[in-house]
Amino acid sequence: MPAAPGFFLFLPSHSNPTPARMTSYLESNQERFLSELLDWLRIPSVSADPKFHGDVLKAADYLKARLEEVGVENVELCQTAGNPIVYGDKLIDPSLPTVLVYGHYDVQPADPYELWTSPPFEPVVKDGKIYARGACDDKGQVYMHVKAFEVLMQDGGMPCNVKFMFEGEEEVGSSNLGIFVKANKEKLKADVILISDTGILANDVPSIEVGLRGLSYHEVEVTGPNRDLHSGLYGGAVANPINVLCQMIASLHDENNHITIPAFYDNVAELSAEDRAEMAKAPHSDDEFKQSIGLTDIYGEKGYSSMERTSIRPTLDVNGIWGGYTGEGAKTVIASKAYAKISMRLVPHQTADEITALFRQHFISIAPSGVTVKVTPHHGGEPVVTPTDSVAYKAAADAMETTFGTRPIPTRGGGSIPIVAMFKSELGLDTVLLGFGLDSDAIHSPNEHFGVFNFMKGIETIPHFYRNYAAAMKA
Amino acid sequence: MPAAPGFFLFLPSHSNPTPARMTSYLESNQERFLSELLDWLRIPSVSADPKFHGDVLKAADYLKARLEEVGVENVELCQTAGNPIVYGDKLIDPSLPTVLVYGHYDVQPADPYELWTSPPFEPVVKDGKIYARGACDDKGQVYMHVKAFEVLMQDGGMPCNVKFMFEGEEEVGSSNLGIFVKANKEKLKADVILISDTGILANDVPSIEVGLRGLSYHEVEVTGPNRDLHSGLYGGAVANPINVLCQMIASLHDENNHITIPAFYDNVAELSAEDRAEMAKAPHSDDEFKQSIGLTDIYGEKGYSSMERTSIRPTLDVNGIWGGYTGEGAKTVIASKAYAKISMRLVPHQTADEITALFRQHFISIAPSGVTVKVTPHHGGEPVVTPTDSVAYKAAADAMETTFGTRPIPTRGGGSIPIVAMFKSELGLDTVLLGFGLDSDAIHSPNEHFGVFNFMKGIETIPHFYRNYAAAMKA
Repeated sequence: MPAAPGFFLFLPSHSNPTPARMTSYLESNQERFLSELLDWLRIPSVSADPKFHGDVLKAADYLKARLEEVGVENVELCQTAGNPIVYGDKLIDPSLPTVLVYGHYDVQPADPYELWTSPPFEPVVKDGKIYARGACDDKGQVYMHVKAFEVLMQDGGMPCNVKFMFEGEEEVGSSNLGIFVKANKEKLKADVILISDTGILANDVPSIEVGLRGLSYHEVEVTGPNRDLHSGLYGGAVANPINVLCQMIASLHDENNHITIPAFYDNVAELSAEDRAEMAKAPHSDDEFKQSIGLTDIYGEKGYSSMERTSIRPTLDVNGIWGGYTGEGAKTVIASKAYAKISMRLVPHQTADEITALFRQHFISIAPSGVTVKVTPHHGGEPVVTPTDSVAYKAAADAMETTFGTRPIPTRGGGSIPIVAMFKSELGLDTVLLGFGLDSDAIHSPNEHFGVFNFMKGIETIPHFYRNYAAAMKA
Repeated sequence: MPAAPGFFLFLPSHSNPTPARMTSYLESNQERFLSELLDWLRIPSVSADPKFHGDVLKAADYLKARLEEVGVENVELCQTAGNPIVYGDKLIDPSLPTVLVYGHYDVQPADPYELWTSPPFEPVVKDGKIYARGACDDKGQVYMHVKAFEVLMQDGGMPCNVKFMFEGEEEVGSSNLGIFVKANKEKLKADVILISDTGILANDVPSIEVGLRGLSYHEVEVTGPNRDLHSGLYGGAVANPINVLCQMIASLHDENNHITIPAFYDNVAELSAEDRAEMAKAPHSDDEFKQSIGLTDIYGEKGYSSMERTSIRPTLDVNGIWGGYTGEGAKTVIASKAYAKISMRLVPHQTADEITALFRQHFISIAPSGVTVKVTPHHGGEPVVTPTDSVAYKAAADAMETTFGTRPIPTRGGGSIPIVAMFKSELGLDTVLLGFGLDSDAIHSPNEHFGVFNFMKGIETIPHFYRNYAAAMKA
């Protein structure tokens, strides 16, 4: 396992630098930290696929053991109707503020396996990056918190109270987390939520996400004839469910790539010209963007930049489609059914319930005669904007400035962490999204990875956050 | 195995009835005929899937053995670059006419297996029908010829010469048959081609297909980003290959369900009002049609009837589509690639080469910037119209009138038997399509079946064809 080159690339040049003894502890333990993470990544905790259920439980056990090992107290597996929630805390003084750290130990399915250059559950460190499903999303980022706690305990102890809550169903909609939170408000009492499940713009351009898009996710099924038919005998006189599904999907965007669902944009918060100008200051090059993912051209809703299209604007994407004969060679069949998974990313002040209802109603309404349509909503999530003027945001920004040597940029992200809105409504708490991933980490894709630099930078930065936050709350 | 009720439903009431000794032979051997066919159907001779290659060869061996058993001579497996062609003949007198019988022993893939009520390669006879992949298309119909030969040999011998040529690649485009035919013109010399790979309108409405649509079949691949992406991070700023593929497919039809490929209809032969009026006389009910396949509405090209849409008009259907995440649950991915299998049915005087080129050119031309498109043509086939005023057609129509008790209706079919056009161009021979299947036999679908009535009626009718044809050619 090679050491990460450039780990201390950005030496802090101002007040509150990382203490030398902490730096030294990080350096001398990096190899062990990585080795422990790799062991965890070897457990395929895929929550979407029942065949990995045993591994999901194993991953929870592993996390519980590591938390206990570093001195977290009251560690337990809290049973839910689904996968357990791993809880633990260190409550040093009720007069000090409490940080509730959230993360998830489940991972996305890894297929298509054949596109991975190394197997998704046999992690390797290559060119300074950890390759494995979950390396970044979110096991790697959760493990930064475990090790940041260890670092602090070795360096004078926690400066405030901390509670850890790590769930195993984030990738399948967190359906039991809300129930758990509702039932355990006292146990989870805190002053702020801290989550590392997002990213920075680049390793030399730190940033903190302050907005996240919501999600409305559906599976649709179009049924034509009651059985598969021979396309020669029936073709031309039967509404082909695949052709129909394609027409229905195509009609969901107009020529300007606006979404055509009636009332879809009614509640979308339009940004002021000033806010858009502010956003445009973040470093971004469409050429580099295209190059990074091999695109021949950029694309998107007319009137908006690529940055805006992935952050302040809602979208509609087909995430999967299938029907008919998909094997080798040619089969002249008209399928009885065609299917798609269709999701929409939402922005303030759309709500998942509202958009789910609008989509469902519209999609059924555009079905031509001759077919029947079924729409099954999967999980949804609310869009959120987190404050940039809070004590906690400032503590996080200062921590990053210390460890990166440059002030982080507040950004509006494209992904969804539905539980941020739930924490606000159930616990009344704001969240700080102190993430260390990169857009290029290929989360949810083959060859997901996480930079060793990013992993170690997270472990270095988080202690500063606790100290800054505790100090500011005391003052 | 129950006996087929209604086997002798239509007793011939006019000249040349089936001789009593032949009737008796058919009755007393029906169970054995079925049992032999079922043994053959047990061999999964799926030509499209390499994993069944050994079974394809087994099915050829089985056919060879059965031909030898009934007295066909010179039986051999003719090797090709693909699956062997089973050849055999009975040449009784060079002064008599020769019939070249063509069929195929390969079958369509049977998936989706879960929709079969009994396994596709464990044939059962239920309610007077043989259920198995290939029961009708084309093993059941080929086996009628083997048994019709046996019947004639037991009833005074063949009245003319016969050559049998059964291939194992019909379901994958017959790519080696043309090479074999070109190289064996002397061996295959004959006066007419006889094929049983089509159907009749109903068991009390016999018919003979005199027109068949051609085929142009393509696999298309749309590539967007060079890897799967997280739809939250990238959604809105990347052309999603699935959405794009849907838009491209949707654009291939206009609001009247005309195909929009430029020049697509240029060579389509328009039928005269008289011909259309003649066609409209065939018994057809849109209500029954809808009911038979569970449709809520009929569908198709504006200005044409259902019968016309499936026979004299060209079509475009998606036969399969896939891309992105298709497993259980929700994965928020933008796929790198999306795929579809798209086929067109052709009518006189379109040609497969012309339409293949037009489709390819058009499909690539409509790709929006931001994606790349690959079009891979699979096999094609030419549309044909066979004569209704020939000696052979009359011999077939008379044979059916004898055994069904009613004159068959000439029909224009929707399916494709590409080799009919090839036989005409390579051997200069017309074809008679003396098929006994039904539209409801679910060929190419789960639960393919073939009526015991139809199987036995074929065995009864074919000998009459040989006798009628030999007599007419002599006269």
